[in-house]
Amino acid sequence: MTTDTSLTDTYLTDTSLTGGTGLAPPGLEGVAVSTTTIGDVRGREGFFHYRGYSAVELAATRSFEEVWYLVAEGSLPGTADAAAFATAAAADRVLPPGLGSLLDGLSVRARPLEVLRSAVSILGAELGWPALVDIGPEQARAEARRLCSLLPTVVATVAVRGSSGAERALVAPVGAGLPLAANYLSMLLGHTPEERAVRALEQYLVLTIDHGFNASTFAARVIASTGADLSSAICGAIGALSGPLHGGAPSRVLDMLDAIGDESAVENWVRDALAGGDRIMGFGHRIYRGEDPRSRYLRELAEELGSPRLELARTVEETVVRVLDERYPERELRTNVEFYASIVLESCGIARELFTPTFAVARAVGWCANVIEQLEHNRLFRPVAHYVGPAPRPVPPRSTAA
Amino acid sequence: MTTDTSLTDTYLTDTSLTGGTGLAPPGLEGVAVSTTTIGDVRGREGFFHYRGYSAVELAATRSFEEVWYLVAEGSLPGTADAAAFATAAAADRVLPPGLGSLLDGLSVRARPLEVLRSAVSILGAELGWPALVDIGPEQARAEARRLCSLLPTVVATVAVRGSSGAERALVAPVGAGLPLAANYLSMLLGHTPEERAVRALEQYLVLTIDHGFNASTFAARVIASTGADLSSAICGAIGALSGPLHGGAPSRVLDMLDAIGDESAVENWVRDALAGGDRIMGFGHRIYRGEDPRSRYLRELAEELGSPRLELARTVEETVVRVLDERYPERELRTNVEFYASIVLESCGIARELFTPTFAVARAVGWCANVIEQLEHNRLFRPVAHYVGPAPRPVPPRSTAA
Repeated sequence: MTTDTSLTDTYLTDTSLTGGTGLAPPGLEGVAVSTTTIGDVRGREGFFHYRGYSAVELAATRSFEEVWYLVAEGSLPGTADAAAFATAAAADRVLPPGLGSLLDGLSVRARPLEVLRSAVSILGAELGWPALVDIGPEQARAEARRLCSLLPTVVATVAVRGSSGAERALVAPVGAGLPLAANYLSMLLGHTPEERAVRALEQYLVLTIDHGFNASTFAARVIASTGADLSSAICGAIGALSGPLHGGAPSRVLDMLDAIGDESAVENWVRDALAGGDRIMGFGHRIYRGEDPRSRYLRELAEELGSPRLELARTVEETVVRVLDERYPERELRTNVEFYASIVLESCGIARELFTPTFAVARAVGWCANVIEQLEHNRLFRPVAHYVGPAPRPVPPRSTAA
Repeated sequence: MTTDTSLTDTYLTDTSLTGGTGLAPPGLEGVAVSTTTIGDVRGREGFFHYRGYSAVELAATRSFEEVWYLVAEGSLPGTADAAAFATAAAADRVLPPGLGSLLDGLSVRARPLEVLRSAVSILGAELGWPALVDIGPEQARAEARRLCSLLPTVVATVAVRGSSGAERALVAPVGAGLPLAANYLSMLLGHTPEERAVRALEQYLVLTIDHGFNASTFAARVIASTGADLSSAICGAIGALSGPLHGGAPSRVLDMLDAIGDESAVENWVRDALAGGDRIMGFGHRIYRGEDPRSRYLRELAEELGSPRLELARTVEETVVRVLDERYPERELRTNVEFYASIVLESCGIARELFTPTFAVARAVGWCANVIEQLEHNRLFRPVAHYVGPAPRPVPPRSTAA
């Protein structure tokens, strides 16, 4: 059987596009697939920004709602705009009729992110959102605000599945005057949270709104490029986020710390894990060489919150970095956003199975901005496959096919 | 305000990747993003194949189940394997407990493709499918067979929403011995379909199983590259298919024919539409120059079925091609798969709002094969964004932000 490996027929007449190999780099690594004005991730500098403003500086100085406005609308709001936006977003938090009972119908064993994905799909169906290609950016932004406002309510609804009426009663937007982070944490905890926990969560949420064309954001843009409705794009993004190679790992950092146990066990555990080829959770990033700026900021937040995990986490970090530097001196692997995020979110009182859904609450703001931007100068994503299977041949008669 | 348009920091040190412009072609047009052994689309030749066998030849000579096996397993089945596969697939058709009642809970106004998307999301949640990165290809293929077997049942369930008990009772796998196409059409029609309608539908389904890295297949691969579960990837693909620029148009072909009315109106209608810049449904394709081989085959099928629409459709085709050739002699725009598919599916007795869901029933086989192939030599899809917004600057004090 001959094999057909030539790029026989694509538009790819310019082989310089693929460095002469006929194929783009695996995973499109380093390939700039589109322009954006939403933000930039400068891996070598350890710096990322939204619309030109350092995300770390925004986390330190601005509210979640202000940064949400910045990412969604393109500029920081003045005082009146910020207040109007916060009020409108808070009013968008109530689940539409029927969605709550549909969520109740799902098995208690369904994982929170799967419920969130299903909820977004059902939401689009119930609200009858039109194809994005059929609406303007104003309507798309209104839908996006509604979606992002609803997600915390959905996650909180998921969190209390199977629990009693008293706990369930708390899953309602608690005071339209509360900002998203305070309202979200109130719903999750069932009581008024500590101010420093609210502020830590808010800073975490600001830091995770957007981060270039990661797999979930890129999936959202690919789906949006077909002109599909907003929920289709966000549903796909949540699905991508559920993958362990993208967003599925923060809760596994705590699982790892649990498995290590205490500081005296760290050195042996790390060396055994690396010798056995095990994956160490919370280290390394496709874009950053050296420290992830989110990791640095979240470590400081974890220190302020005084997590009892902190000593162990610091020891693991130091040990892993030292041992990795010994083994792979050229790679400079450092903690990524997930490592200290797990400590911060746990300190805020959030259950580990809700870490990725909480990430989705923030990232949805970035996904929506990307979806809307994609439609501005849209071109359907339709790359080509490089066929390397058997060469075309006649279909054999049925009796002799084996 | 200065603008930051340099590719300041990506892995894109090799600018030959982007033809010197710093950006991949819009929509990744012509960019080979991955190898595949599933099939190839040769646009200039007007030819496409699955695993080396002409899709058109397969449609003419093989059953849907045999081609499904070919695409899923990599080779045509022998007689015993074909029978075993068909039996196993038929046994997979029953909705898991709870999914039917969840679908009942959705609004009757929810569009069928949105319900299908939601059903796939809920299915993954209810069945607790693990991340693809945590399972082997055997288990993934079993999940894929289950998913593809369930989709016709879901579509049929959607089709009878709001109808009486008698019609609803028909939405059950009718006879495990029936092949997918016969069973599907029986469920949709509520009676035993004509043999020639079953065979026409089967040929349509064979022709639409796979077609390179179109937007929905690419979306499925991007999501799968994160290691997410199968339902996440297929849910994203269905969302992409719902976009009017990808799969949302076959029902619009019939709407267009309805609007034209009769043959005497065609010439003026076409000229007015083109002069007004309106989109004419069912013409043109990113990959094919000249005739889409699916279109040619489906036109012949429509002729065999003797659709009363056929004369009008032929006149529209001839007129559009003639007028387009006058206006754009270099473009050679011809009918695509959607144009005659709409006539064939209508002749089979399928309601137009179920055209795209029916397409999804077939394409799911291709999506699943692509998802499983993606995991074989996986690399997370994580391209980069080319930032072209304002250059980084300090966050202003709150009072002066406007």
